[in-house]
Amino acid sequence: MSKFIEFIARKAKNNKTIKKAYQSTVNSYLNTHIGEITPFNARISENSERRINLLVPSINQEHLFGGISTALHFFDRFYELDEKAARRIITTDASPGNEDLNKFGDYTVVSSEEDSRIESQIVPFNDRYNKTLPIGKEDVFIATSWWTAYFAQRIVRWQAEAYNQMPKKVIYFIQDFEPGFYSWSSQYSLALSTYLYKGEQLAVFNSSLLKEFFNNHGFKFSEEYCFEPKLNASLKQHLAPFEQLNKKKKILLYGRPSVARNAFTVIIEALRNWVWIQPDSLEWEIVSAGEQHNDIDVGNGVIIKSRGKMSLEDYANELKESAIGISLMISPHPSYPPLEMAHFGMLVLTNSYENKDLSNLHDNIRSIDDISPDILAAKLQSVCSEFLTNSSIGRVKGNDNYLNESDQFHFIESLVRGTR
Amino acid sequence: MSKFIEFIARKAKNNKTIKKAYQSTVNSYLNTHIGEITPFNARISENSERRINLLVPSINQEHLFGGISTALHFFDRFYELDEKAARRIITTDASPGNEDLNKFGDYTVVSSEEDSRIESQIVPFNDRYNKTLPIGKEDVFIATSWWTAYFAQRIVRWQAEAYNQMPKKVIYFIQDFEPGFYSWSSQYSLALSTYLYKGEQLAVFNSSLLKEFFNNHGFKFSEEYCFEPKLNASLKQHLAPFEQLNKKKKILLYGRPSVARNAFTVIIEALRNWVWIQPDSLEWEIVSAGEQHNDIDVGNGVIIKSRGKMSLEDYANELKESAIGISLMISPHPSYPPLEMAHFGMLVLTNSYENKDLSNLHDNIRSIDDISPDILAAKLQSVCSEFLTNSSIGRVKGNDNYLNESDQFHFIESLVRGTR
Repeated sequence: MSKFIEFIARKAKNNKTIKKAYQSTVNSYLNTHIGEITPFNARISENSERRINLLVPSINQEHLFGGISTALHFFDRFYELDEKAARRIITTDASPGNEDLNKFGDYTVVSSEEDSRIESQIVPFNDRYNKTLPIGKEDVFIATSWWTAYFAQRIVRWQAEAYNQMPKKVIYFIQDFEPGFYSWSSQYSLALSTYLYKGEQLAVFNSSLLKEFFNNHGFKFSEEYCFEPKLNASLKQHLAPFEQLNKKKKILLYGRPSVARNAFTVIIEALRNWVWIQPDSLEWEIVSAGEQHNDIDVGNGVIIKSRGKMSLEDYANELKESAIGISLMISPHPSYPPLEMAHFGMLVLTNSYENKDLSNLHDNIRSIDDISPDILAAKLQSVCSEFLTNSSIGRVKGNDNYLNESDQFHFIESLVRGTR
Repeated sequence: MSKFIEFIARKAKNNKTIKKAYQSTVNSYLNTHIGEITPFNARISENSERRINLLVPSINQEHLFGGISTALHFFDRFYELDEKAARRIITTDASPGNEDLNKFGDYTVVSSEEDSRIESQIVPFNDRYNKTLPIGKEDVFIATSWWTAYFAQRIVRWQAEAYNQMPKKVIYFIQDFEPGFYSWSSQYSLALSTYLYKGEQLAVFNSSLLKEFFNNHGFKFSEEYCFEPKLNASLKQHLAPFEQLNKKKKILLYGRPSVARNAFTVIIEALRNWVWIQPDSLEWEIVSAGEQHNDIDVGNGVIIKSRGKMSLEDYANELKESAIGISLMISPHPSYPPLEMAHFGMLVLTNSYENKDLSNLHDNIRSIDDISPDILAAKLQSVCSEFLTNSSIGRVKGNDNYLNESDQFHFIESLVRGTR
């Protein structure tokens, strides 16, 4: 989205109508409210049974990948182990449609106006102006993004006062350092504020690297758990001995123009440099996967072909054939593509970020700390040379934990017990 | 600008034309280039005399306050002390108009196509496609923003190769941690990259707090200098003994909706809470200074009156009359309004940020570390009570260094010598 803004900003410079629209927007209602924290109000519930609540922005199909799907998986495991607890998914930003509900056959959609005792509920609460949500004395909340944590922290305070009891622990499922999704701003501060909560808050981190980042920055939670990435089970079926992979002069990019922290433009600018320093650049095929965009001519006859979001099968084939991968992620979260690429025998260029350095996790991964187009281009030229000198250079062993079948949420039993 | 984007994003959800425009933008040329680093190319100059070059985005009147004006002041002092050096201001983002040049009477505007020897030049180099700038063997560069540093670092490398000499030191005038102006993104990484430059780079920090922040984060420069904020000389003339100030039930906000790091929306949301917890809220006048916006009704009959960017005289009068100030700045830079307010006998609410805690600099300043509307509202109610209990509570002594007349750039002589 940020590029679109820049585009509008550029247009606005020379266009009076847009300038005026901008001015009036600056001066408008929109500018004085923080949309994410639209009040989330509670009311007394007759229900005094234990119920676990997942606060999640959306369960719509278009959002059901990556982070939200991991959170739902965690919620399923939590429910399995929390005997006799009921469960409720509360969506704060979007209301699921009929098709979105196909994957939630065990659940019933319930309006926030009902004080229902149905065991498995989905309550859309995105349209909540002048509405309240029934909250019982034994409702427990799991937050999955900074604004859902913001709500959870305020709900447990309300709940403690309403039922004259100690505030319940908040469970915060943390998959990134979310202030980093914003420039320094109100949203940045509010996201940060959810990590400074003074009450009891139990953190579940997606990866030890992320937990370490939080600890390095002085954030403390009353309990802390973390889980590690695992190779996607369907991708794993495509793993093959290195000899059976057919490594070509092919570079695979993780190219998502709409996700700023994947630094798409840095990759493209780097390739615009690389085509002039790589002697055989025309012989290399360059494929971008992750999000559809136009093919991009990077000069000297080289064109990046966009494959968009591929099926796992097609993705696996690209992983098998490609010699080199480029995948950036400006965040302490490890991110999955570099690990996937490395395990499929590719040499991978990625970035380090503070305590994150994926080159410690796999010998096929090379990290750069200084991300600029010329440095990335030089590094790319150097790994291309490595491959040209030795085409089986990617044949190195990976990290066992990433491939084994052990329970990702091995700590969940004691976690659940601690929230009862 | 971020609010405007949000507005567009919201509109885009339900508007096919905007959605389409967004899509096509995502897929367009714009999205694959990083505007800030549009190539900045050099050519050999006949001029082998020493010349100091200030790389600055703009010297247009509308940009000539705050940071750029401080940088120009530094450049003036540098030139005074650098005997026999010529000087050149190069603008990278905007070209000055005739009115903008009124303040630069000693300078001559020179086209980048000329290899001029005029002693004091201004070279607009914003429109540089297919153009080059003449750079001599004794040109020295002072950068004032991350992208000007990005250019300077590459120019000195070019210069070293072109003239077969050691690369010149880059002088980097650093007034904030600029990656914080972006979400994690290409721009964030490039800004960060300028601090990781491997060559000789001399940093001049606006404030010891900012220098300490860089040091805490492990950034090292070959030489480091810093200067401290001083009370604006014109404001200082308005300073008066506390007894002559006429403190009223008046709250002064530093309200800049367009500068995200001033967290305008958090302040407004806090006031929406405060009007319900402050018993005499209707008796307080609330004034917003810094940038024009519509007056804002925050409920319970209370209206924030916007005064926009005031003259120094009007601002001084507000400082004298107001009992309470609110000024947030999500950054390690101290920012001037909290210090100004405190020295005019106001109780000031501001935020701390990592190593920054302005409450150490003046007893009238109260810092909060957890910035959320409810916490800010409670703190505001508490300082209002302090004032109601004791209306001369702001009568405390300030920080001498902030008020004295000593040279802000006391280190400049040795700095200049080190670059020769």
